[in-house]
Amino acid sequence: MSRSLSCYRCGDRYDDDTRVRCACGEPLWIDARPTASSWDDRPDRGGMWRYEALLPIDRPEGVAGAAGGTPLVRTPGLDDATGGRAFVKDEGENPTGAYKDRGSAVAVPHAIAAGDDVVGTVSYGNMAISTAAHAASLDRECVVFVPADISGVRLELIAQYEPTIVRVSGEYGKLYGDALALSERHPISVLVSDAPARISGYKTAVFEIYDALAPETPDVIALPASSGGFASGVWLGIRDLESAGLLAERPRVCLVQTAAADPLTRAFEAGATEPTPMSPDETGETIAHSIGNPDPPSGARALAAVRDTGGAVVSVTDDEIRAAQRRFAVDGGFCVEPASAATLAGVSRLAERGEVAADDSVVLVPTGTGFKEMGTGEAAVETEAVHRTDLSDRLESLLGSRRP
Amino acid sequence: MSRSLSCYRCGDRYDDDTRVRCACGEPLWIDARPTASSWDDRPDRGGMWRYEALLPIDRPEGVAGAAGGTPLVRTPGLDDATGGRAFVKDEGENPTGAYKDRGSAVAVPHAIAAGDDVVGTVSYGNMAISTAAHAASLDRECVVFVPADISGVRLELIAQYEPTIVRVSGEYGKLYGDALALSERHPISVLVSDAPARISGYKTAVFEIYDALAPETPDVIALPASSGGFASGVWLGIRDLESAGLLAERPRVCLVQTAAADPLTRAFEAGATEPTPMSPDETGETIAHSIGNPDPPSGARALAAVRDTGGAVVSVTDDEIRAAQRRFAVDGGFCVEPASAATLAGVSRLAERGEVAADDSVVLVPTGTGFKEMGTGEAAVETEAVHRTDLSDRLESLLGSRRP
Repeated sequence: MSRSLSCYRCGDRYDDDTRVRCACGEPLWIDARPTASSWDDRPDRGGMWRYEALLPIDRPEGVAGAAGGTPLVRTPGLDDATGGRAFVKDEGENPTGAYKDRGSAVAVPHAIAAGDDVVGTVSYGNMAISTAAHAASLDRECVVFVPADISGVRLELIAQYEPTIVRVSGEYGKLYGDALALSERHPISVLVSDAPARISGYKTAVFEIYDALAPETPDVIALPASSGGFASGVWLGIRDLESAGLLAERPRVCLVQTAAADPLTRAFEAGATEPTPMSPDETGETIAHSIGNPDPPSGARALAAVRDTGGAVVSVTDDEIRAAQRRFAVDGGFCVEPASAATLAGVSRLAERGEVAADDSVVLVPTGTGFKEMGTGEAAVETEAVHRTDLSDRLESLLGSRRP
Repeated sequence: MSRSLSCYRCGDRYDDDTRVRCACGEPLWIDARPTASSWDDRPDRGGMWRYEALLPIDRPEGVAGAAGGTPLVRTPGLDDATGGRAFVKDEGENPTGAYKDRGSAVAVPHAIAAGDDVVGTVSYGNMAISTAAHAASLDRECVVFVPADISGVRLELIAQYEPTIVRVSGEYGKLYGDALALSERHPISVLVSDAPARISGYKTAVFEIYDALAPETPDVIALPASSGGFASGVWLGIRDLESAGLLAERPRVCLVQTAAADPLTRAFEAGATEPTPMSPDETGETIAHSIGNPDPPSGARALAAVRDTGGAVVSVTDDEIRAAQRRFAVDGGFCVEPASAATLAGVSRLAERGEVAADDSVVLVPTGTGFKEMGTGEAAVETEAVHRTDLSDRLESLLGSRRP
């Protein structure tokens, strides 16, 4: 494939595929320009490497081979809540439990191929865990920049892969720009949320959804939005499918934010093409840690993805997220993190507004497993206590006897 | 496919496929008797339902569709520790993070098809979580029998799917037998660890390993052993492959136990065909909760699987398990639970004894994700603190500058 970069906004092209941002200021992505034959020639293998020809590296050994290839599941139990026909694309079924593995599987080997023995990332959550795992698998050093006040729980999840962990004091939100400068100055690739090779990895989620649903095409793809990186990857995947002549109509990309930090929703509602960064005063606390981003680096591109596909951006409260998380488990059988549950809450909002038709196929993309931070042992759980020898009596009163 | 049951030991057959044990006392399994054409005709789809024709039910909707289809990954970082060529079959990438989903995906709909609206299980770990999730997905009641002293962490993981949770006082180890009696007396299928439909689900893991490695066949398949249910499923899968004429040589099934509860290792070393249940006095504490089973209901069948394939059973200590868990993460990029890490420790033991050849393909099967009970925030993690404006100086001393 071509390995040139281009800017979605001004159209400028660059040959250096380690560059992150265009001279115009917007983030770049890597061109693939697939044709119909790119689909016909796919190898018959599992996982995201079925689309190797459309990625900027060859399939590496190690944990990268376990990334992607997640199931898409028809989930009638969530139809009511979505207003359409619900499908779940369970990105929790990745090696580190999040879609981030698709990006790391491409971006970490890509950085190594470009000559960097050391990779890094700016994250205290799923991206940090994933980048550290993929670096470990390829036996490379990894430096993770976390905020000074990171929780012990998150620290432990990252530390298992033994990266160098640097607690950064000062304004953590400024680290995105710092990371690009540090990558230029020192022999390290700090793989930020919208590193172009990451975005290439993310687009494979759309290819898998397309292939699993064919000959039907999805009407709505709903995902949580934070930096705008995943939304960019989903849009790139849709553009690749269009380039290959496979899409009659674009799926509507619907992004869901937490009301605690929703610059994209505000910009979408105001008709703006760029989000306005939210100040610390405007930004609230939320259980949806993974998407509490007041200043998304790919925010303008995410908004363009939504507008290009006729989608929407909505915000939901923590209460709505909790209710949606419960529905994912109780009506769907899926354990998802709060940020992922937001997708269902967001689509419910759209359905209430009449923006989902009953026959629409609605693909919810829970981006991360709920198992990572569940099981604190602090939840109140209702149980009953029965002695072993009384179990039959108890079941008799609960269920009665078998008919003869 | 045929839906009759048979006994691996005495060969007796039964037409009632809800029966669990043979009159001879041993557990039953469901016959499939595949031929070579069973493989040629597989549909091109992801997940375990590629083998639908060899399963006793049709593919259901819901979370069952997300079970199996896990990646098999060449993992050179673990070659040293295995003494051969290491592959990881990452069963953590299941919807509830464990191979148990393969069993629940078949057994829960199978019980419903047999007329039971209520399912149950005897477990306080992965099997409970999985059974509750699959029942929720199909909108059926689920009753989970847990020990009276279950931890709050585990309770929370199970309770998210809202089954009825019964804390059972009295001797929890006797509940396997009770469960069979309760299922006969009341309109509930209590799906124990070796319910025949579960075993059918487990065999798909072997089919996937075979298909991913073809034309090579695996030399060693290493898994943790507790009840012997998964070992039985792996053996059934191997027998199906042989029946279809696809295997020139059987992979050696190697089972790994915790030294705290290792009746299978003791029986294997003593040349016995049946394990002797261990008393509470003989049974120790272990970090590998998932396999601390002193009285495995499918123990004799698991031993038969090992002997039939030329495999082995070994026990490992908690210290070995901790070291192996670290290696899985640091050298492989995989986060696995302690019971799963035991596979690597066990194969290392076999390698030391000269039972693994350098060119052997060794498939480690981590059966469950490590994310469920990790992140207590209590681990000591080494970090360094740097102010944002000093990061470049810090990277300069760590890594130097880029060459011009």
